[in-house]
Formats: sequence, C-alpha cells, structure tokens
Amino acid sequence: MSQYFENIEKIKFEGVDSDNPLAFHHYNPEQIILGKSMKDHLRFAACYWHNFCWDGADVFGQGTFGRPWLKPGDPMERAKQKAEVAFEFFSKLDIPFYCFHDIDVAPEGNSIKEYINNFAQMVDVLEAKQEESGVKLLWGTANLFSNPRYAAGGATNPNPEVFSYGATQVFNAMNATKRLGGENYVLWGGREGYETLLNTDLRQEREQLGRFMQMVVEHKHKIGFKGTLLIEPKPQEPTKHQYDYDSATVYGFLKQYGLEQEFKMNIEANHATLAGHSFHHEIATAVSLGIFGSIDANRGDAQNGWDTDQFPNAIEELSLIMYEVLKAGGFTTGGLNFDTKLRRQSADPVDLFHGHIGGMDHMALGLKKAAEIINNDFLASKVKERYAGWNKPLGKDIIGGDHTLESLAKYTVDNSLDPKHVSGQQELLENKVNRILYG
Amino acid sequence: MSQYFENIEKIKFEGVDSDNPLAFHHYNPEQIILGKSMKDHLRFAACYWHNFCWDGADVFGQGTFGRPWLKPGDPMERAKQKAEVAFEFFSKLDIPFYCFHDIDVAPEGNSIKEYINNFAQMVDVLEAKQEESGVKLLWGTANLFSNPRYAAGGATNPNPEVFSYGATQVFNAMNATKRLGGENYVLWGGREGYETLLNTDLRQEREQLGRFMQMVVEHKHKIGFKGTLLIEPKPQEPTKHQYDYDSATVYGFLKQYGLEQEFKMNIEANHATLAGHSFHHEIATAVSLGIFGSIDANRGDAQNGWDTDQFPNAIEELSLIMYEVLKAGGFTTGGLNFDTKLRRQSADPVDLFHGHIGGMDHMALGLKKAAEIINNDFLASKVKERYAGWNKPLGKDIIGGDHTLESLAKYTVDNSLDPKHVSGQQELLENKVNRILYG
Amino acid sequence: MSQYFENIEKIKFEGVDSDNPLAFHHYNPEQIILGKSMKDHLRFAACYWHNFCWDGADVFGQGTFGRPWLKPGDPMERAKQKAEVAFEFFSKLDIPFYCFHDIDVAPEGNSIKEYINNFAQMVDVLEAKQEESGVKLLWGTANLFSNPRYAAGGATNPNPEVFSYGATQVFNAMNATKRLGGENYVLWGGREGYETLLNTDLRQEREQLGRFMQMVVEHKHKIGFKGTLLIEPKPQEPTKHQYDYDSATVYGFLKQYGLEQEFKMNIEANHATLAGHSFHHEIATAVSLGIFGSIDANRGDAQNGWDTDQFPNAIEELSLIMYEVLKAGGFTTGGLNFDTKLRRQSADPVDLFHGHIGGMDHMALGLKKAAEIINNDFLASKVKERYAGWNKPLGKDIIGGDHTLESLAKYTVDNSLDPKHVSGQQELLENKVNRILYG
Amino acid sequence: MSQYFENIEKIKFEGVDSDNPLAFHHYNPEQIILGKSMKDHLRFAACYWHNFCWDGADVFGQGTFGRPWLKPGDPMERAKQKAEVAFEFFSKLDIPFYCFHDIDVAPEGNSIKEYINNFAQMVDVLEAKQEESGVKLLWGTANLFSNPRYAAGGATNPNPEVFSYGATQVFNAMNATKRLGGENYVLWGGREGYETLLNTDLRQEREQLGRFMQMVVEHKHKIGFKGTLLIEPKPQEPTKHQYDYDSATVYGFLKQYGLEQEFKMNIEANHATLAGHSFHHEIATAVSLGIFGSIDANRGDAQNGWDTDQFPNAIEELSLIMYEVLKAGGFTTGGLNFDTKLRRQSADPVDLFHGHIGGMDHMALGLKKAAEIINNDFLASKVKERYAGWNKPLGKDIIGGDHTLESLAKYTVDNSLDPKHVSGQQELLENKVNRILYG
Repeated sequence: MSQYFENIEKIKFEGVDSDNPLAFHHYNPEQIILGKSMKDHLRFAACYWHNFCWDGADVFGQGTFGRPWLKPGDPMERAKQKAEVAFEFFSKLDIPFYCFHDIDVAPEGNSIKEYINNFAQMVDVLEAKQEESGVKLLWGTANLFSNPRYAAGGATNPNPEVFSYGATQVFNAMNATKRLGGENYVLWGGREGYETLLNTDLRQEREQLGRFMQMVVEHKHKIGFKGTLLIEPKPQEPTKHQYDYDSATVYGFLKQYGLEQEFKMNIEANHATLAGHSFHHEIATAVSLGIFGSIDANRGDAQNGWDTDQFPNAIEELSLIMYEVLKAGGFTTGGLNFDTKLRRQSADPVDLFHGHIGGMDHMALGLKKAAEIINNDFLASKVKERYAGWNKPLGKDIIGGDHTLESLAKYTVDNSLDPKHVSGQQELLENKVNRILYG
Repeated sequence: MSQYFENIEKIKFEGVDSDNPLAFHHYNPEQIILGKSMKDHLRFAACYWHNFCWDGADVFGQGTFGRPWLKPGDPMERAKQKAEVAFEFFSKLDIPFYCFHDIDVAPEGNSIKEYINNFAQMVDVLEAKQEESGVKLLWGTANLFSNPRYAAGGATNPNPEVFSYGATQVFNAMNATKRLGGENYVLWGGREGYETLLNTDLRQEREQLGRFMQMVVEHKHKIGFKGTLLIEPKPQEPTKHQYDYDSATVYGFLKQYGLEQEFKMNIEANHATLAGHSFHHEIATAVSLGIFGSIDANRGDAQNGWDTDQFPNAIEELSLIMYEVLKAGGFTTGGLNFDTKLRRQSADPVDLFHGHIGGMDHMALGLKKAAEIINNDFLASKVKERYAGWNKPLGKDIIGGDHTLESLAKYTVDNSLDPKHVSGQQELLENKVNRILYG
Repeated sequence: MSQYFENIEKIKFEGVDSDNPLAFHHYNPEQIILGKSMKDHLRFAACYWHNFCWDGADVFGQGTFGRPWLKPGDPMERAKQKAEVAFEFFSKLDIPFYCFHDIDVAPEGNSIKEYINNFAQMVDVLEAKQEESGVKLLWGTANLFSNPRYAAGGATNPNPEVFSYGATQVFNAMNATKRLGGENYVLWGGREGYETLLNTDLRQEREQLGRFMQMVVEHKHKIGFKGTLLIEPKPQEPTKHQYDYDSATVYGFLKQYGLEQEFKMNIEANHATLAGHSFHHEIATAVSLGIFGSIDANRGDAQNGWDTDQFPNAIEELSLIMYEVLKAGGFTTGGLNFDTKLRRQSADPVDLFHGHIGGMDHMALGLKKAAEIINNDFLASKVKERYAGWNKPLGKDIIGGDHTLESLAKYTVDNSLDPKHVSGQQELLENKVNRILYG
Repeated sequence: MSQYFENIEKIKFEGVDSDNPLAFHHYNPEQIILGKSMKDHLRFAACYWHNFCWDGADVFGQGTFGRPWLKPGDPMERAKQKAEVAFEFFSKLDIPFYCFHDIDVAPEGNSIKEYINNFAQMVDVLEAKQEESGVKLLWGTANLFSNPRYAAGGATNPNPEVFSYGATQVFNAMNATKRLGGENYVLWGGREGYETLLNTDLRQEREQLGRFMQMVVEHKHKIGFKGTLLIEPKPQEPTKHQYDYDSATVYGFLKQYGLEQEFKMNIEANHATLAGHSFHHEIATAVSLGIFGSIDANRGDAQNGWDTDQFPNAIEELSLIMYEVLKAGGFTTGGLNFDTKLRRQSADPVDLFHGHIGGMDHMALGLKKAAEIINNDFLASKVKERYAGWNKPLGKDIIGGDHTLESLAKYTVDNSLDPKHVSGQQELLENKVNRILYG
C-alpha cells in the first residue's frame, strides 16, 4: 500500500440518504437499469496522466499538489511508486477501468532504446497490478505531443524522422495495449495541426496523417487487436488549429482515406465546447454518422477558452448524453473516461476522490434519468410524429430516388402545394425533460 | 435612369494620388497582374438582396434607408423599379457581375403558380437589363429560408411537401440561372439545421439533404448547365446549428453522398469567423481539399457573434486570401461577391458606393500584394525547404506505402533516430509578409 | 374576451404528479418558503413586447406567428386589441406583473404630439385593464432604439435634438409608470454605444449619458415616484459596443456621476453571457456592489452569439441565482421578468403558455432548492470558515487600516510567515449542491 | 559577454529598402515625428520573464528552447547568468527599457528572508547592468501568482497571512523599482479573482483588494516614488474570473476606494480581446476615463481563447492605437512593453530578435501612420462636425444642467422637433484610413 490514501476506505454505494461525501449516492454498480447493470452501462475509467503525472502547475504557476512520486528521484523507481498509488486509487474508488499514455507509465529515457526498455518493464508492472486489482484497461495511447521533437507535430511533422519516431511509439503502445487487454486504442493529435499557415502545407500534412492512420489500421489487423480504434477530436490547444477539429471534420478525413469503418470517435465534452458545439451535439452527430465510440466526460468552463477539464456535474446535460448513448445501443468497447483535472487549489489527496465520486455519481444519475426518458418515450414519439410524412408516399419516393427536381416541380404545381409551418414545441419538450429530471 | 443615384457618375480608376472618394485608387480593371487583368482575376459581383431588398432594419429597429422601391405598392411594379435601380448601380460601379435569390428579384406571390409567373417575367426583365448593361450573372440561388414554411428547413424539413416546394424553387432558379448565363449556382442552407436536438432526427435530415443535393446535380446535367454548383457553409444563424458548418464538414457530407466532384465551396469570410476559423483557414482548407470555388468577401466583427456582413477592409488578411487563390490557380467560374450590408446608419445613397468602392479597392490591393508575395517567393521557398525530407527516401517510402508501424519501429531503432525540433520561424515570416505589405 | 386563447383555462398549480402540461408543477403562489409566499418571493412579470409586438420575424425570415392584432389596421384599434389579448394572457397565466415600453402599448404616430396623445389614451386603457384584472406593473420603460432617429443613440446621440426627443419619451413613460403604480422604471440603452470608434467621441457621449441619468433622477424625485430606477446592462447588439456593458461597468459610471445610490441593476441572463460572464456572476457582482435590483430571466444559447432570449430552464443555475437573491434579502421592488422570445417555430398560441409555465415552474423550483441550500447552510459555513482569518487580529488590523506595506513586511519577517495554500474543495462543494438539487 | 547571442550584431535602422531581417526598417530611434523622436514617442521595453525565465513549455509539452541559464544549478549563479544574457539582449536590440517581476530576477529562496536577501543582491547586479548598458527600467512588479501560496490569490486570499506575505513582496519590489529609477510600478492580479462562486465572498475580497491598493499608494508617497502606479486589467486566466476584468471595471473599483487619481492602466492587447473588446476599444476607453498609462503590446489569436502573447503585427490596428495615444498627448511615464512570447517552435536564439524587431518596426510604422492621420485630420474633423450641435445652445444648455426632462419635453413639443438620423459614414471613414495606410 502506498499510504498516500491511507485514511480513505474503499468507496461504496450508500444511497441518496447518506450524508457521507466519500460514498456513492447514485452509482450502484450492480443496480439493473434497462436490463443491464450500471457498471456495464457506464464503464467508468480514470486517467493516469492528470491524476498521477500532473502536480497542479498551470501556465502561470508552479505545482500545488506535492505528489511524492513526482519529486526528483530514480525515474524507474518513481514510475513504480506512481503505479502503486494509481492502482490503490483505482481500487479504492472501485472504478473498473483506467487509461494511460506510454510516457505516463514509463520514463521516456534518453533514446528510443531506453524508451522501449522502460516501457516494457512498466507494462509488466501494470499487468501484475491489473491482475492483482481486477482493474482493466479501457484504452491505451501514445504521447506524440509533449516531447520537444513533436513541437511541429507527430504524424504531420515536416520531418519524416519524427513521423518514424512517433510510429515507433504507437507501435509499442498498441502492442502494450493488446497485451494488457485494452478494449480500445486512442489517437489524439494534440500537435497534429498548425501554428501558422505561412509555413504549412495543409495537403501534405493531411496525406501524412492519412497514411499514418492507415498504418495504425494495418497494424491492428496484423497483431489481431480486437479492440476499437478511436480518434479524439479537438479543435485547438495546444496548437492554433488542430486537424481533428470535431466529429464531422474527422468523418470527412476518414471517408477520404477509406477509414470510416475502422475508426470511431472518443468524444470529449470540453473539446466539443471549444469547437463551438454543445457536448450533446457532438455525441448526437457522431451517433448519426455511425462513428460514436467512447466518451471523455470532463467538461469545460463556459466563460474560459481553454481546456479546464473539470469533473462533469451538469445532470441536465448528462441525462441527454446518456439518452443518446442508450438510443445508440449503449457502449460496446467504449466507456466513460474521466480525463479530468482537479482545480489547482484542490490539493488534498481526498480531493481526487471527491472529484471522481461526483463525476461517477452524476453520470449514474444521468443514466437513471435517461432511462426514465426512454421509458416515458415522449421524445421518441415526438420525433416519430414530426417526420411521419417521410413514411408516406411522397416522402418515400423522394428518399427512394423516384423524384427529380422537375418531377417535384410538377407535383407541387399540380397539387397546388402550400405547406404551412407547424410548431416545433421546443418549450413544451424542454418542460417535459425537466419534469423527468426533477420529478 | 432611376434618378436614385442621379448625382453619381460612373466610378473610374484614378490611382492612389487621387483624393476623390468616388474613384478607385487600386482597382484598375485592365491592369495586368501576373499575366491577367485585374478584372479577370477578381471577378467582382454585387448582391441584389442586401443592397436592394433590405431597408436597414435590424432585430431592434426599423429600416433607416427609406429605399423608394421598398415602399408599399404593386409588387411587380416595385420589382421592376428595383431592377432599374440595381442595374444603374451595377453600371455606375462598373462591377462586372451580380448575384440574386429568386425572391429578391420577383415577388413570391400567393401560390406556387404566382411565384413561377412572377419569376419568369422578372427573368425577362433581368435578361434585358444584362444585355443593355453588359453586367453578367455570377450566380443565382433560391431562397429557402425566409418564408414561414421553411421555419424548420427546406430540404431538411420534417414535412416532405416543404421539400417538394423548395425543390420547385430550386428547379426554377437553376433554370433561370442557366438562361441568364450564370456562371455558378449556389446553395446556402440557412435553415438546414436544427433549433433543438430534442425534436430532431439528425440522420433522417442528413439523408434528405443528401438526396436533395443529388437531385440538384442530376438536374444540372440534365439541362446542360455548364456552371459550377457551390455550397456556402455557415455554422449557425438563423438556425442554432447549421449542417453546412464549415468547409471540412461539408467535405465529409459530399464524400458520404459521392458528390465531392460535383460541388465546390462558396466561402464567406464572416461565416468562417462564426465557425471559429480565420477566413484564411477556410480558404486554405477548401483549396487543400480540392473544393474551393468562390468567395463572399464580407467580414464580421471580431467582438460580435452574429453576421455583420461588413465590407472587407483588412488588407493584411485579404493579401493572404488572394495569395491562396493565386496559388490555387485563380478563380475559374467563381469570383468575389460582396454579400455586404451597409451599417444601419449609412443611409445615404452614396454610402452604397463608398462601401463597394472600398471593398473593391481593398481586394485589388490584396491582389497586388499577393502577386508581390508570389514574385518574392519566400513563403513558397520556406514551405518547400521545411518539408524537404518528404522528397527523400524515408519520406517517399512512408507516403508511398512501403512502411508499416513495425518497419518504422525497426528503422528508428536501427538508426537510433533522435530527431530534434527546428524553428518554424513564424515571427520572421510574419515580418517578411509585412515588409511586402508596407514596402 | 379576445378569443385568441379561447381554449385555454386559467393555469393552476397541480403539483409534481400532474401530467397536465398546462398546469404549474412547482409554482404554487401561496406556498410559504422561508416565511414568505412563492408569489411574493418571485414577483413574476411577463413582457408586452416579445409576446405581443413581435410576430416571429428574424433577420433571415418573415414572421411566423400570424398574430391578428399585428396585421394592418387602424393603429389605435390594433393597440386596444393588443391590450385585450395581453391582459387575457396575463390573467390566464395568473402572473402578477407585466412590463412595457411606451411604443409597445401605443402607436408612435407621426409627430411628438401624436405620440403623446396616443400614449395618454392607452395609459387609460391599461389603467382600466390593471384594475379589472388585478395585474400590476412591475416596470415601465421608453423605447429609444427602434425608431430610425435613434440609429446613433438616444441620450448619446451626436444630435442634441434627438436627446431632447428621447427625454420627452422618458418624461412621458416615467409619468405613465408612476400613474399605473409601476414599482420600477427601467433604462436599457440599446443604441447607447458606438458602431465605430472612427466617428465617436467617447468622453462626450459619456457626459451626455451622465447628464441624462441625472435628469431621470431629478424627475423621479420631482414627481414623487417611489419606485426604483433600474439600468439594464448589455454589452452589444444591436450596437457593436454598448456603454452599459455589465454591472461592474455601470457601477463605475454611476460612481462617476454620483448616482450609485439612485440606480440599481436589472440583470438579464442572456446579457450576462453575451458579456462573457455567467448569469450567476452578474447577480453576485451586483449584490456585492450593492446595486442589485431586478432580473430578466431569459437565457441565451451557449453556442450562439446573439440574444436568443429563451425561457430559463437550467435549474442548476437558477437555484444558485435564487440563492444569491435570498442571501441578499430577496426582491424589494424588483422581480423576475420574462423578456423571453418563443422559438420562431413555436407558432401556436398555446406555446406562449408552455414557455411561461416552464419559466415560472423552473424559477419556482430554483427557489425551493435555494431555500434548501440556505437551510442546509453548508455553503455559508464553508465561506465563513474559509475567511475566518479576517476576523482575527491580523486580518482585522489590515482591513481596519492599522497596517502599511512596511509594517506588514516587518510582521512577515519577524514571524517568519510561510503560509501554505489550502484546498478550496470546489469539487466537494459542487457535489453537495447537486445532492440538494437531486437528493 | 554571454556568448548566447554571439553571432548577432547590434540591430540598426537600415530603412525600408534593406533586405536584412536583422535590421530595423521603420524604427529609426532619432527620427522626429510630430516634434519628438521615435524613441521618445514609443518608449519600448522588453520583458524579463517570457524572454529569459520561460523555456518554451506549455500545458501539453516540455520546454523547447534549451536556455542554458534555466538548467539546474546554483540559483544565484543562474540568476546572474540570466542577467548577463538579458542585458546583452537589451543592448543588442537597442531597446531603451526593460521590465521585471521580483522573482524573475532573483530566486525566491525558501523563506521570506532568503527572498529579501536574494532580491537585494540581484538589485545590485541590475543597477550595475543598467549603468553599464544605459538600459532603463520602465517598470517593476511583484509576482503574487506563481508560488502555490497564492493559489487562492494574493491580496484577495482568504488567509491574511498570504496578504501579508504578498505585501512584503510588493514592499520590496516597490523599493527596488524606486532605487533602479523605474518610471512606473505595475500591479497585475493574476490570481485576484475566483475559481468558483461557491466558496467566495466577493464583497470581502473586494475590501481586501481596496485596502491593498490604498497601502500601495501610501507607500509610494512615503518613499517618494515619482513614477506612476499602473493596474493591468485581465478578465481571466489563470483564474476563472479576475476582478480587474477591463479598464471600465477597474475604473469603478478605483472610484469606490477613492483611487482614481492615483492609478493608471497598463493595457494589454491580448487581455483586451480576452475580455471581449478590441485593443482599440480598451485604449480609447482608458483615455476617455482619464486613466490611460502604458501598453503591453502583445496580441492574442482571434481563434484561441487563451493568452498567446504574440508579437504585434497588425499595422491596421496599431496605427489606430498610436493615433489614440498621440491624441491623448503621448506617453508620459508609460511606454510600449513587449509582454510577448515566442511561438514554442521558435527555438533559435535569433528568433528572440526577429520577434522584437518585428514588434518594434510594426509599432514604429503604426506611429508614422498615426502621425499622417493626425496631419490629414479627417477623423478629428468628422468627429467635430458630427457633434457640432453640442456646441450650440440646446446642447450647451443640456450639458450645462439648464434642462430637465420636463423642460425638454416642453421644448420638443413647442418646436415640433422631428430630428432625422444622418449617415455615420463608417465605410467612407474606413476607406480613408486605409488610404493613409496604403496610400
């Protein structure tokens, strides 16, 4: 035991009447909702990086958390100490999954060989930890954005040697993910974008990224990785503009390179809002395009223009998110990862628990409310009724390809069509949703 | 003559030393730049709607312009009076092209038949006016957003009869555009989006829009229209979310419906910034995707979150826009349309001239500066040098498909690759651009 | 009876178990919360303008509502018909207050004399309607932004005759408000700002606005109006920049002209977010400055950069708003006005009811939740504990003026002070709030 | 000599025809503009922190610059090495001023005593460096935001001991600034704000800040510091909300505590845009309120919602900024500081020169263009003409206090006033400005 969380017991479900802040009030893992346990619906994961690799620093200030394993010391010893604490946390939180970047868990070293060796050793450690704790890997990924060599991108770097270096990391991270039973592999292109168009060849960089993603797919099939490949869109930050701007943008990229059957989206709430969309929009769009995969549930601040990565707490939004997920059939390999950062002032070890307990409880409450909306059915009925005309002859003929502009012009004139607008009843629907949420 | 502009003479090029505000200082139509006349490079167009159909009203106030042809009266007489003034304006401005929506030029009437009849009569009027004045049609379009029937969309309306009505308008507007020698046909989906996800079926609406666009393509080929079909992206306003969000989003849509060879983009500066992009980004992105077509040059206000549609006046930006256009080979059928609104206080007839003269002069100056950048060549050289590695064996092999993640991992290790970042020289390049702009 | 709402009965409280959408589920006017009835806590008002003077038009489209009293006709007859419908609506909604602009209720006419006469007649009508219905006037105001003469502002117009004309309207509107028993008088400077700094004298315009506001105060005292004067901040729209940007900005203005005891703020949720603030921030700021007065509860859309004026429905936010209001002692003359617009598609008469019922129910639910937070007391305790040091000697001496930089430097050194940061417990507090909301 | 810039010669003015990127093309220090040398007009300063204390790290990546003096080592030796490089840079750049925070120049140490000793030693070093190089101090300041103890603010911290510690730093930094001949002292409250309203007492924190600022004023007078006290507004980042939001907000704060004669504003371009204003707006507003002092010229990125602190390069904007500064009489103690960060990719030592040379040249060009606007006079004439009515009897009587609402109502009726709007000629003015810029 790491002793870091020594006064904290394993978190349990105690129900809404409990006043214990270190208990779940809504997340009851084994409770059945629409025929499936909450645990299986929600598939929660905690992240390695913000929780265990970040010390509370921001652009204007030093770290505030004082994590012992981030202090100077032998890198491999520190990495093992970090793993110790991380798995103690996952276990005490009773969270079923975790996620990592390669260099979260192992020191980068001073050469590619050191990187490979360090990472291999730490994969052994993680494997043992997983077995011991029962915590599973939701997804792995490789960090192609922190090291200075990636300042101008990984796959989209003007230097093909950087591409090659990045490919080596992804090769190792995919292999590790497979070995650790990871259910997905994620690609987030934090520096795959541009700082200025003045020195950038957009077409060239897109070709590089296209080829990179094809190689990822080829490697997946070669090694027999059964998980899902996920792209995580983000519009900007750290880069001025990032190519994987949002789901609709990534969809076009996938179509261009024939990859739309091979990748799904890992949607992050905070990235959605930075892209000028609601979180709900991004989820619904990915679902409608058939590329929805997984969620990073951390939210932004509506008044701040950067990633704040706060714990999700808006049930009003989360209920609609879970409603979309349920309508889409629920998660398959995906899940709900907390790519969350504590506020920099939240420097107590217990704050890590408060943040995650809140996040898990709020998502669980959203799930319960979403199930009520499904059961009540007023949204689905309204939509069905609203589009009813598309199941009648005119609508079917149009969609079926039996009409041209000319034939419709004739139809319109012959029938003296004069269709009128009807109320969309937005206010009524909003009221009804709130009545589900607040009883 | 309409008398509306009776004291204004035809605008002429007088050069930078002239103090006459009613003259061009940079736009010299016949001046040759990089082997082509300014007029042929820039292909300026004025719009019918904001100039002649809008009286200066905004959401908080009544019209301020007092245009005589917008006062109550016989609709067809008013439409003819409007055409009279419009062509007087085009001629006096010496602008080679104009653009219109169907219901800008003809009254909608009270039935589809009245619409068709009114429009047909006005097409005759326009044809005569074009012949008389020499002004040509850059593009036509149909308005599927102002009439209440389109409150929930045109092609994406839940009611297929509205789809049919809209198709009828597009049928007529495409035919009219062909007859009037229009060089492009534009589709802007101002209400093709949603107000709330609660009552919306995204997948259904996308299918409708896909089929609609296919019908437009089929009709184009059937009638032998030789112009270009253009989609104009916009992220929102009037709708909460609009499906044609930006160029990258539309690209994905086109790929899904096999339309990427059939449509190009009409990029509007103000729509780019509402989508969270720079104008430069949208142009460069469309070029890189092979779907750049035409430009609506009107800009927004960086602090206001709605379409202000101001005349372009930032030479620093316009020079880079024209640089992208020149690098892409220049306009083919496209051009530079001013979808511009006067400020509501600019209520004098002469203000229409000031706005357009400024817009034309500023774009012309941007063209001259862009040509200097091309001639000076430092941007192209920098880009070539920066990506040089991709023309060497490693880069060529990667792009050529001769590498896998595994072979690159081996290559990286075998060669102990340790690539370092190099300066992107952004500040230097920005300085160099400014030295072109300011001598 | 107007017959416009003929099938709608008076809205009643039916409780959370009722499925009737045309009933209140939370707003129970006579229910006592913290010693006061809900009705007296919330002091709801409906507005005249969006409900009865707007036909659903937006910048891109015609009206969709088809309100009969907005059709062409004799202006005074139409105004009376409008009053008939308005008061039928207020009564059926059982809303205790309404609000109006001068030209909402009476036609402007073609001269200042017609304006005065028309307005005087309509004040008689309103007085009778108020008496008959029991509906009271929360506030009156004058519209100094819609008529073209105000294109460059009212009080800040470059032309003093426009100032004089505006003063005349305010004179009449204040007198009418007093006569009708209005509890407040509001000033919203929709065009008091600038479109471009190039033609604007900021200092001059500020002087004009300062003098205007002083005249308003002088007139209030002269006529013995006992209500509160309210300024409604807004950062922009229609104007590029509006001087009454937000509460903190207005506070500085009031201090400059010695008016901070004479005016309070009418805070609008949508204006807060357009200014880059949360609604909560604007309320808390106004309270902390001692200038909180009243609320316009309509919200914006987080992705749209203009006034959408939607009905409030985020209980998570509204509970904290009501918590601030309760902590501040509740409303005195102020109240909760719905300066709300239906969605343009919500064209059925009953949609007006759905919107307001939702708004009233959501605010009432927020009130109930706020009272629970007050009773539970964890927020107030946390704040008290967090600042406890300021009630101890060092803190008291600092605030009391007994320390200088030098004496503190000595104190710090002498005591070898080395204060450490402590957790702000933000995540825990957010969890606790949610447990009140959803407990 | 530090050798860090060993291949770089002192930067000289070579004029617009020079192709040397390491020369000034517009900034000619001794050139006379409107009767004063460019050097005296512009009063350029470079900053210590971004240039010499930052290694190119961002939230997502490690440092890229590899500055030798930031490598591990004896803190005081490193501080002296840093000073060596900094003054070599200032001298070679021929920039007349620099700026610093206390802990930029001296190590914080492990106690308040170490801080004081380290700082005192480094002030000696700086004094010698200033004398040797002729570089002067534009302003000093204290960093009350980086150390973890300031996580919840300095002056607004819930713990008065933190206030006391911060006061000690400001005491020392003010004294050092005076000794080094600093011409201003700046206060930027990077953590003076809140992260969540849930744990914040706005009124209490405002009182603390008010008292802190009063103490600063008292100390200034006590030690006879003749420079100007400057507050630097910023709306957010790192804090969710910062109290010194913008100039108008700070003005209200100063008025409340009777400090409006004691403080002026240090306006930063990037902070202006983060606050939802144009840079031009913030300068013009501060001038109109009589609180304009100094400028941090670094700009943001219009699409990114955080401080990018780029070098200024938009002459179109800078010309209007310098026009406002000239109209206001020019800088007194203030100047143009570059609080600029290189792009993270710009890792070559020479990039520091490119950035600053560009910034200085662009501001100098802005100055020349502003002088042309002053000489041409069309903006001033337009404004004078536009407000002419306020110099006539009606206007004078209104401003002079000789009118009431009632007397104006009478005047309006008696004279049957019916003032009409006139054109604001915004488009014409924008054209005229561009003709100065590009004539």
